[in-house]
Amino acid sequence: MEKPISSAPASGMRDLVPNEVALRDWAIGIITESYHQYGFTRIETPIMENINLLRGGEGGENLQLIFEVLKRGDKLERELKETSVRKDSLADLGLRFDLTVPLVRFYANNVSTLPTPLKAIQIGPVFRAESPQVGRFRQFVQCDIDIIGVKSEIAEMELVQATSSTLLQLGFENFTVRINDRRLLALLAESFGFAKEKTDRVFITLDKLDKIGIDGVSKELQNDEHAAAAITKMIDFLTRSQTAKGDLTAQRAALPDLVTDEIWQPLYNVVTAIQNIAGGKFKIEFDPTLVRGMGYYTGMIFEIACEGYSSSVAGGGRYDKMVGKFSGRDVPACGFSIGFERIVSILSEKGFTPPSTKERIALIFDADRDNAVDVLHAATELRKKNHIVGVYARKKDMKKHLDQLVSQHYSGYVSYRGKDAELEVKSLK
Amino acid sequence: MEKPISSAPASGMRDLVPNEVALRDWAIGIITESYHQYGFTRIETPIMENINLLRGGEGGENLQLIFEVLKRGDKLERELKETSVRKDSLADLGLRFDLTVPLVRFYANNVSTLPTPLKAIQIGPVFRAESPQVGRFRQFVQCDIDIIGVKSEIAEMELVQATSSTLLQLGFENFTVRINDRRLLALLAESFGFAKEKTDRVFITLDKLDKIGIDGVSKELQNDEHAAAAITKMIDFLTRSQTAKGDLTAQRAALPDLVTDEIWQPLYNVVTAIQNIAGGKFKIEFDPTLVRGMGYYTGMIFEIACEGYSSSVAGGGRYDKMVGKFSGRDVPACGFSIGFERIVSILSEKGFTPPSTKERIALIFDADRDNAVDVLHAATELRKKNHIVGVYARKKDMKKHLDQLVSQHYSGYVSYRGKDAELEVKSLK
Repeated sequence: MEKPISSAPASGMRDLVPNEVALRDWAIGIITESYHQYGFTRIETPIMENINLLRGGEGGENLQLIFEVLKRGDKLERELKETSVRKDSLADLGLRFDLTVPLVRFYANNVSTLPTPLKAIQIGPVFRAESPQVGRFRQFVQCDIDIIGVKSEIAEMELVQATSSTLLQLGFENFTVRINDRRLLALLAESFGFAKEKTDRVFITLDKLDKIGIDGVSKELQNDEHAAAAITKMIDFLTRSQTAKGDLTAQRAALPDLVTDEIWQPLYNVVTAIQNIAGGKFKIEFDPTLVRGMGYYTGMIFEIACEGYSSSVAGGGRYDKMVGKFSGRDVPACGFSIGFERIVSILSEKGFTPPSTKERIALIFDADRDNAVDVLHAATELRKKNHIVGVYARKKDMKKHLDQLVSQHYSGYVSYRGKDAELEVKSLK
Repeated sequence: MEKPISSAPASGMRDLVPNEVALRDWAIGIITESYHQYGFTRIETPIMENINLLRGGEGGENLQLIFEVLKRGDKLERELKETSVRKDSLADLGLRFDLTVPLVRFYANNVSTLPTPLKAIQIGPVFRAESPQVGRFRQFVQCDIDIIGVKSEIAEMELVQATSSTLLQLGFENFTVRINDRRLLALLAESFGFAKEKTDRVFITLDKLDKIGIDGVSKELQNDEHAAAAITKMIDFLTRSQTAKGDLTAQRAALPDLVTDEIWQPLYNVVTAIQNIAGGKFKIEFDPTLVRGMGYYTGMIFEIACEGYSSSVAGGGRYDKMVGKFSGRDVPACGFSIGFERIVSILSEKGFTPPSTKERIALIFDADRDNAVDVLHAATELRKKNHIVGVYARKKDMKKHLDQLVSQHYSGYVSYRGKDAELEVKSLK
């Protein structure tokens, strides 16, 4: 026999064994059913997109992380014949790095047959060529809902309501929805007198508030050589704002004059609507320091944090300018994404096992003695009693065999004893 | 506004709109639940594998169709600095072209934690760089069950039973399972005196029997310049075999002496067992001319054809020598794959619509007049009555709006009339 080939998955990729898939499938089932209840329906886009679409999209840092797919046949031969092979022209396709860029393309491509507004669910793998490290994978599942075609903040309300209700059904409690508006954030920086070209860096620092505190933000802004007066005003604002937390009137009063009611009122409406709907089961807070990374957001942004866990479990926002890049006509759009891998790893840490609706029974027969047809008929009889039935040949070490059945979540077994013998289920619990 | 980017999916790829995904999800639900009943559990492997694994696998023609993923960073720079860039060293990863090569790697990689035997379900996309043409896509879903670790033909019986029962649950009837053994096929060619190096070409011709008939096969074998005596014996065999169809004793008698009971008995056992289990709902036939394309099969092979449709809806076989390529130790293995895209397109041609278990109700409100919180509360009330509820702002053209709701499978709607008004459901049927 030849030397065996390596059996490890590619770097940064992973195999999912039955118990892992069972947990993921359970979560996907809950999420899908919950979103269906809100009138969302699933759509799907291909794993691969034209490379120009991905490179031209607003992927931010993700643009550096695209897995590019080599051209094939004559197209590739032509590139390789060039005196100097150009790196950028070797690929014609790439693997999607998120579900938002493909969604926007999808919407523009299918607008004539799609309902307006479109309320879409997307659940599927995305790919990023990050440096492999523990717990970070190069293929992971994203789970988004988006509403395309609704300008008013009822879209934000529905997204937050549907996502929160889904998290509750997944067993998450004590979570907080933080909400802000990207325009408000820009107005803060402008009001306080930060240089326009350095606003993005102000946001990067603000984003760390949770981790480094007001003092940390102050230090980082100083190191970054922003105008001293601007820093003072920002720190003053952050201090007042933190005191006012949870009190919308006081939070409104702390905002600079540039923030008009046009921006404030929809935010206020969403916060109060969701507080009302939440019934105390989760919290929603206006947080003027919430940033969210993606550059394509144009209005409200939101994030869900879960007590006891550092990173967020969901995030999203409004992106009214993206559809126009494809269709030539702007269409309002808004989305919320559940951090699927985060959710699954929290459930797994908690030792959560999906409830099973049917009993799993193993039918054990003697391969040398028993008639296979009779065994299969016996299995069919057991299935008619609404059991899940696996058929297994008896192994020499019965104890080891039964242990293995337990680890496969079998709750009972039947020792097959011939065509006319009764099928007696013995418990494995 | 800049010139819009093209919104079409990449060549050979497709977008799936809500009604399409609903049908696919329904089929996946039926298939998964049916296979679960037989004790199979889902596993998942990554979309991308190391390119050497894919190239080294037994992919047959598919090896020409691999989407290769470009190396990144320094690794790519190094390749491009070579005086002559080598095509084969530009990629380090590739997209899987089937689910069997990855399964075998998965098994070898996880054998210590997996149950033996492993009864695995795999449902997921695979990728082949075929020339784009109508109805053929470069990304499509495969849907396999495999049993790894069972040497006896009970594995084949279970695979055929589970797959047939699944097809019945998908609404397919009047289908026929054709079954053969790869070794028997080889012995036929040997017995009749075909040149060993030309056996594969004999099989390619035999595979066309359904389409071109015995005369067609005879002509093609002659054109291919096989030994005249061998051709005569083969045609004689085919004629006798066709007469004997459905009569196992006569079919056995028509086989050359080289086919021993060691090969015949398991085949006979599977055919009779499944005939017994089928209860007349579908047929199983021994077909000594069944070929199946893949080179890795080592024993029984099977295929399911559906009356009125030319290509098969499922296919599979035993591949006892593949696991050994990874683990260095052969492990018996056997699989059956449902042609998922074929199934879905037949269901779609039939005009099949997945049954819905809940009523879909649209709640229509007036965006200018109504209070959003009250509207969302009304939607929640309707959901408590076990309805799926989509919330929509009233459009100017009410008739058009209602038509669109019908096309989204809404069965009723409620015109919101204020906080205290009753929620009256009007039928859309």
